[in-house]
Amino acid sequence: MYQVDLNSDIGESFGDYKLGLDEEVIQHISSANIACGWHAGDPVVMEKTVEMAAKKGVAVGAHPGFLDLMGFGRREMTLTGEEAKAYMKYQIGALWGFAKSKGVKIQHVKPHGALYNMAAKNEVLAKAIAEAIYEVDADMILVGLANSELTKAGKSMGLRVANEVFADRAYNPDGTLVSRKVEGAVIHDTDRAIARVIRMVKEGKVEAVNGEDVAIQADTICVHGDNPSAVAFVEAIRRTLESENVQVVSMEKFIKSK
Amino acid sequence: MYQVDLNSDIGESFGDYKLGLDEEVIQHISSANIACGWHAGDPVVMEKTVEMAAKKGVAVGAHPGFLDLMGFGRREMTLTGEEAKAYMKYQIGALWGFAKSKGVKIQHVKPHGALYNMAAKNEVLAKAIAEAIYEVDADMILVGLANSELTKAGKSMGLRVANEVFADRAYNPDGTLVSRKVEGAVIHDTDRAIARVIRMVKEGKVEAVNGEDVAIQADTICVHGDNPSAVAFVEAIRRTLESENVQVVSMEKFIKSK
Amino acid sequence: MYQVDLNSDIGESFGDYKLGLDEEVIQHISSANIACGWHAGDPVVMEKTVEMAAKKGVAVGAHPGFLDLMGFGRREMTLTGEEAKAYMKYQIGALWGFAKSKGVKIQHVKPHGALYNMAAKNEVLAKAIAEAIYEVDADMILVGLANSELTKAGKSMGLRVANEVFADRAYNPDGTLVSRKVEGAVIHDTDRAIARVIRMVKEGKVEAVNGEDVAIQADTICVHGDNPSAVAFVEAIRRTLESENVQVVSMEKFIKSK
Amino acid sequence: MYQVDLNSDIGESFGDYKLGLDEEVIQHISSANIACGWHAGDPVVMEKTVEMAAKKGVAVGAHPGFLDLMGFGRREMTLTGEEAKAYMKYQIGALWGFAKSKGVKIQHVKPHGALYNMAAKNEVLAKAIAEAIYEVDADMILVGLANSELTKAGKSMGLRVANEVFADRAYNPDGTLVSRKVEGAVIHDTDRAIARVIRMVKEGKVEAVNGEDVAIQADTICVHGDNPSAVAFVEAIRRTLESENVQVVSMEKFIKSK
Repeated sequence: MYQVDLNSDIGESFGDYKLGLDEEVIQHISSANIACGWHAGDPVVMEKTVEMAAKKGVAVGAHPGFLDLMGFGRREMTLTGEEAKAYMKYQIGALWGFAKSKGVKIQHVKPHGALYNMAAKNEVLAKAIAEAIYEVDADMILVGLANSELTKAGKSMGLRVANEVFADRAYNPDGTLVSRKVEGAVIHDTDRAIARVIRMVKEGKVEAVNGEDVAIQADTICVHGDNPSAVAFVEAIRRTLESENVQVVSMEKFIKSK
Repeated sequence: MYQVDLNSDIGESFGDYKLGLDEEVIQHISSANIACGWHAGDPVVMEKTVEMAAKKGVAVGAHPGFLDLMGFGRREMTLTGEEAKAYMKYQIGALWGFAKSKGVKIQHVKPHGALYNMAAKNEVLAKAIAEAIYEVDADMILVGLANSELTKAGKSMGLRVANEVFADRAYNPDGTLVSRKVEGAVIHDTDRAIARVIRMVKEGKVEAVNGEDVAIQADTICVHGDNPSAVAFVEAIRRTLESENVQVVSMEKFIKSK
Repeated sequence: MYQVDLNSDIGESFGDYKLGLDEEVIQHISSANIACGWHAGDPVVMEKTVEMAAKKGVAVGAHPGFLDLMGFGRREMTLTGEEAKAYMKYQIGALWGFAKSKGVKIQHVKPHGALYNMAAKNEVLAKAIAEAIYEVDADMILVGLANSELTKAGKSMGLRVANEVFADRAYNPDGTLVSRKVEGAVIHDTDRAIARVIRMVKEGKVEAVNGEDVAIQADTICVHGDNPSAVAFVEAIRRTLESENVQVVSMEKFIKSK
Repeated sequence: MYQVDLNSDIGESFGDYKLGLDEEVIQHISSANIACGWHAGDPVVMEKTVEMAAKKGVAVGAHPGFLDLMGFGRREMTLTGEEAKAYMKYQIGALWGFAKSKGVKIQHVKPHGALYNMAAKNEVLAKAIAEAIYEVDADMILVGLANSELTKAGKSMGLRVANEVFADRAYNPDGTLVSRKVEGAVIHDTDRAIARVIRMVKEGKVEAVNGEDVAIQADTICVHGDNPSAVAFVEAIRRTLESENVQVVSMEKFIKSK
C-alpha cells in the first residue's frame, strides 16, 4: 500500500478580491497551504479558510511569502537570513492564531512563489526558513521541492520534511525542475502527467528531459484550484491514484521523524 | 502589601525608523505591550523586542492595532465585529510566533491607540476583541481602560481582565478618562500624578475633575518610554511605589480568574 | 436638447486580482473614474486603464480613496483636513503621471466609497478635498453627490462641480440619498430606475420616499460594470436616454465655470 | 567658472517616524530628491517637504523607489520593465501633485537605493526608467550614477542626464563604484573626499583604486543629511567648492539638451 499527500494553495482571496475555487478543490486534497496575508490572503479570509479546512478534515499548513501583494509573492526579493527568519515566524504565527482558535494544529509550512523557488537554490534562505520553523514548533513539517536546498536544510535541522513533486513539470537529470523559460518545461498531456506521478510515488523515479530515469521521492503532490479544469485534473489525479492502490492521506500520517 | 503592574508600549520601530527608548524603559516595567506590525513594529523588531523582554524577565503582551502605519493606529476606522476579531487573532498569532520561539508565553493583550479608545466605548468592538482572545487562548489577560466597555466585555467572556489606569490623565466622575480635547485632561505635575497613582492602587479611588472621589481599580499603570523625561518619570513612579510598599510585578502574578 | 454624463468606476483590479468588466462598461460611458492605487488599482492597471479610456475617447477622472485596500476604501477613517488634502493630491498626481504620458488630461475628480460618503456630510473633509483639487489644477471638475457638503465646498472654492445622481437609489425629501440600511433604499425595478433618471435630467426633479417631488440637478449618473447585468443596465440606460433626446457626453462639455 | 549641483535625499520621514535633518541640510544643497511614499515619505511629509524646498529655492526632484518601506527600498526586487515603468510614473506623478500645487516644477528624477543600483547595471530596468520619464515629461532631468547603464539609457532616449558622483566612495578603473562589500570602498578622510570631488568637477578625473586616473563627469554630488556630522560635511564641501571657484547651482542651470 502506497501513500501520498495532495496539497493545494488556498485562501488567496483578499478583501473584495476573490481568487481560486477553494470550496471545490478542498474536496479532493489532503493538505491545504493557507496564504498568510503577505502575498495573498487577509485575516477574514484566513479565518474562513482554516474553518473550512478544519470542517473538511483537511490538514492545515502555513503558506508564507514575500510582502508583495502587488506581485503575488512571485517576484524575487533580496532578504538577509535574519529578515527571512523573522518573516517566516510572523506569518506562521499569524496563521496559528486562527488554527488555535479552530482547534487544529499547523501540520506543515510551505513557502510560496519566489520565496519557495529562491529557497530551493539559496542555502542561506533555506537555512533561515528551516530555523524559523524549528524554533517556532519543531513538530511542523517543512514542505520543499524534492532534491532542493530547502529540503536539505530541513533535514539538517532535524525537521520532518515532505518532498514535493509536480505532476505537470519536466525534470532535469539531477532531479531539479526544468525552468519554465525552457520549452517543454510544462507537461500539458493530462494522462502522461498522471502516469508520471504514479511512477514517482510507486517507483521513486521520473524520466528526466534527457530520457534517463532520475530518483525522486514524492511525499506530496502540488495541485491547483485556479479554474474548473485545474479542479477536474485534481479529481482525476486522486481517482487514478486510488485506483492504483495509492492512498491519499495528509502528510503527517506518514512523514516520520529521522 | 499592595501589588501593581507597570506596562509600556515597546517595539514600535519599523525598518530604518527608530522609535522609543525601549532598552531604557524596559528596566523599570513589569509588562511590555509589543506592537504587532500593523500600526507599528515589523517582524525583525518583534523578534528582538520579545528576546529583550524575555531576557529581562518582563512579561510579554500583544499590542494589536489598526492596519494604519501612516497614522500610527491613532485614527479611527470603522470595522465590523468579524473584521476586528480576525485582525486581533492575526496580530496575537504573529506575536506568538516570536514568543514561542523564545520560550515565553503571551501574558496579555492590550489593544492600541484608536482601537483601544473605540473599544472602551463600542460594545460590538469590545466583544469582538474579547472573543478573539478567548478563542485563541482563554488564559491570556485582556488589558483595558478601567470602567470601560472593553473590560466589561472581557469579564462577560470569562477572561481575566486587567484594569488600566493613567497617572497623567484626569478622570470624569463616572470613572472614564477626560477627553484630551478638554483643558486639564493631562496632569503635568509629576508629583501630583504619582500621588494620584499611589492612591488609586492603595485606596481604589481617584479625585475626578469635579472634585468628587470616584472608585477605580488600578491593576496596571500605563507608562511611556518616548523620551528621556518619560523614562525618568517611569523610574520615579516605580521608586515611589516601592517606597510606599507597593510591589511592582507582572499582572499574571495577581490577576486571578473569576 | 438635454445633456448628461455617464460615469463608472474602473481600473479596480490589483496585481493578480481582477475586478470589473472594464472593457465592456467603457463602451457605454462618457467619463471613467480611475482608482489610484490606495483602495484599489495598481500602477500597471492604471497605465492600461488610462490607455484604454484614451483610445475610447472616454474622459479620464481620478478616483481617490482611503488607504485601505483590505476594505476596498469602504470603511470610514478619521482624517484631519491636512491629511485628506495631502492624500488627494498624492492620488490625483499619481494618476496624472499616466494621463500625461498618454496625452490626456484629468477631467474630473470623484472621491471613492467611504471618503465620498463622509465628504457628503463632513464640511472639513469636503473643504479639504475641494482645496486639494483647486491647488493642483483648478480646471478639474469636482464630482460629488447632488445636494451634499462636497458639491457645496467645491462651489465655494470656485471649482466647476458636477452633481452626481444615482438611478437605483431612493431620495429623501431634502435631496439626500436614503441610507442603504433603510428598506427601499435601492430601486430594483430597472424601468422605474431609468424613468427616474430621465426625469431628473429633463425636469430636475425626483420623487422622494414620502411621495413629494424634490429638486435635483443631474449632471452625471453613476453606473456600474461589476457584472454582466450591471453592464446591460448601463447599455439600457444609455439607449433610453438617447431615445429620449438626452445626449450622453463627458461632463467637461457642459459643466461651465461660474 | 565651474558649476556643480549638490543633491540630497530628503522627505524620508513617515507618519510618526522622523528621519533626517531636512531643515538643516536643505540650507546647503541645490537639488532635493524627495521620497515619493513607496520606500519612504508619506503625502503629508511630501507636501511639507516640497513647500520647504520651494521656499528655500532648492530645486525639487522625484526620488522613486521600490514598494518596500520595511526595507527602505534598499532590497533588490525583480521587476519587469513594464512594472518598473508604471511604478516610476506613479511616483513621479504623486510628487507632481505637490509640486504643481506649490507652483514649482519637477526638475529631476533620481531612483532610490536598490532601484538606483540595479538600474546602473541592468539595461532593461534602465530603459524602463528612462522611458517613464520621457513619456511623463521629457523636460525632466534623469540623475544616474556616472558611467552607468542608467545614464546611458537616458541619453539614448534623448533625455537630459545628470551624472552623479560620490565624494566618499572609491571608484573602479572603469569608472564604476567599488562595491561597499570591498574594503576601502568608503573614504572616511573628509579632506581627501573633498579634494577628490573638486578634482572630479574641475578636471573630470578621479583616481581609481588601482592608482590610475579614470575619466568621470561630475554634474551633481550626492550628499547626506542623516546626522549632524553629515550636515557639517555638506557645509564643508560647499564652502570648499565655492572657495575653489566652483559655483553650486541646481542642475537645470547647466544640464543642456543634446
